[in-house]
Amino acid sequence: MYKLYDFLPSGNGYKVRLLLTQLQIPFELVELNILNKETRTSEFLQKNPNGKIPVLETAPEQFISESNAILYYLSQGTEYFPQEKYQQTQVMQWLFFEQYSHEPNLATPRYWISVLKQPDKYQEQIEQKQKLGYAALNVMEQYLQNHDFFVEDKYSIADIGLYAYTHVATEGGFDLTKFPAILAWFKRIESQPRYIKISDRPN
Amino acid sequence: MYKLYDFLPSGNGYKVRLLLTQLQIPFELVELNILNKETRTSEFLQKNPNGKIPVLETAPEQFISESNAILYYLSQGTEYFPQEKYQQTQVMQWLFFEQYSHEPNLATPRYWISVLKQPDKYQEQIEQKQKLGYAALNVMEQYLQNHDFFVEDKYSIADIGLYAYTHVATEGGFDLTKFPAILAWFKRIESQPRYIKISDRPN
Repeated sequence: MYKLYDFLPSGNGYKVRLLLTQLQIPFELVELNILNKETRTSEFLQKNPNGKIPVLETAPEQFISESNAILYYLSQGTEYFPQEKYQQTQVMQWLFFEQYSHEPNLATPRYWISVLKQPDKYQEQIEQKQKLGYAALNVMEQYLQNHDFFVEDKYSIADIGLYAYTHVATEGGFDLTKFPAILAWFKRIESQPRYIKISDRPN
Repeated sequence: MYKLYDFLPSGNGYKVRLLLTQLQIPFELVELNILNKETRTSEFLQKNPNGKIPVLETAPEQFISESNAILYYLSQGTEYFPQEKYQQTQVMQWLFFEQYSHEPNLATPRYWISVLKQPDKYQEQIEQKQKLGYAALNVMEQYLQNHDFFVEDKYSIADIGLYAYTHVATEGGFDLTKFPAILAWFKRIESQPRYIKISDRPN
């Protein structure tokens, strides 16, 4: 059985939990507390030298890190990844947008405010990140004004990748009421078969 | 003919120039000066709403942004992308590592020091980024101590993606003499057929 090394509040981990559940692939959740540096032990660094969760163990000693690479692996040959090359590339484009322009700016304010619970200590960095985060949200809002989903109007791993930190952005102090197209897209995602919440502990 | 919207000093743009050249695909280079905000015009934002180069126009009104997504598009079905799913996933893993843990920490000090030429103004941020950049370089060094290339010991877009900003890291104040395995990997890349330098202007 697959083993997922993960930290429950992580949006990156949630991407993988959501797709595994939607694909009906059973897995064992191995929880590591990043606040206690449990991803920096020599044992874990053998699994991912970059010291980050999520890591998926798909076979003994076969580890995959980077949440969006795990989504790629799991979605090949399924309805969650398109078959045509240009559409596949659009999925990649949105997933790289997510890791470069989106996640670093949405996830860190949420981490400082809602996980560490130290908004005052990080106030200056939070403001810098939020400015860039709103720019990323504006790119998404503009696109979703004319599209149901990010690639070919069909739910794919591009949506899973972007949904993970967007739908909890309010926990990082973002005001999402200014983004009606994003809010409508949330509802379309939350009505997909076998949808689970970020806080749902897999069986 | 393909059109590449690019800024010559950009490592992200160089990735695409290098692969197009190695694949012997002719292309027209459309140079935009990011220092003059030429990627923030309404005309360019039609091509990439995120306002960043490189952008590859592969057909009229068909644009691909995000350098690593462009590498994905161009390498499909070529020797620069593996055929087996787990190996493909390892390529993706390294490319997402590059955009999340590597490029933001290597490219920005180089930009502040060697493009803007304002090292004093950004001294504090440079030190923060360099600390994280050295962590990424250590992950690469450790891996390359036992591997010739990043995936299956064969040159692929994973190497192109990681080489782009690593080989000019000294322009961002990094000391690469501490990384002999990385320096040896540079030589293996630079001996690949049809290798071009970052400063080479395509014909």
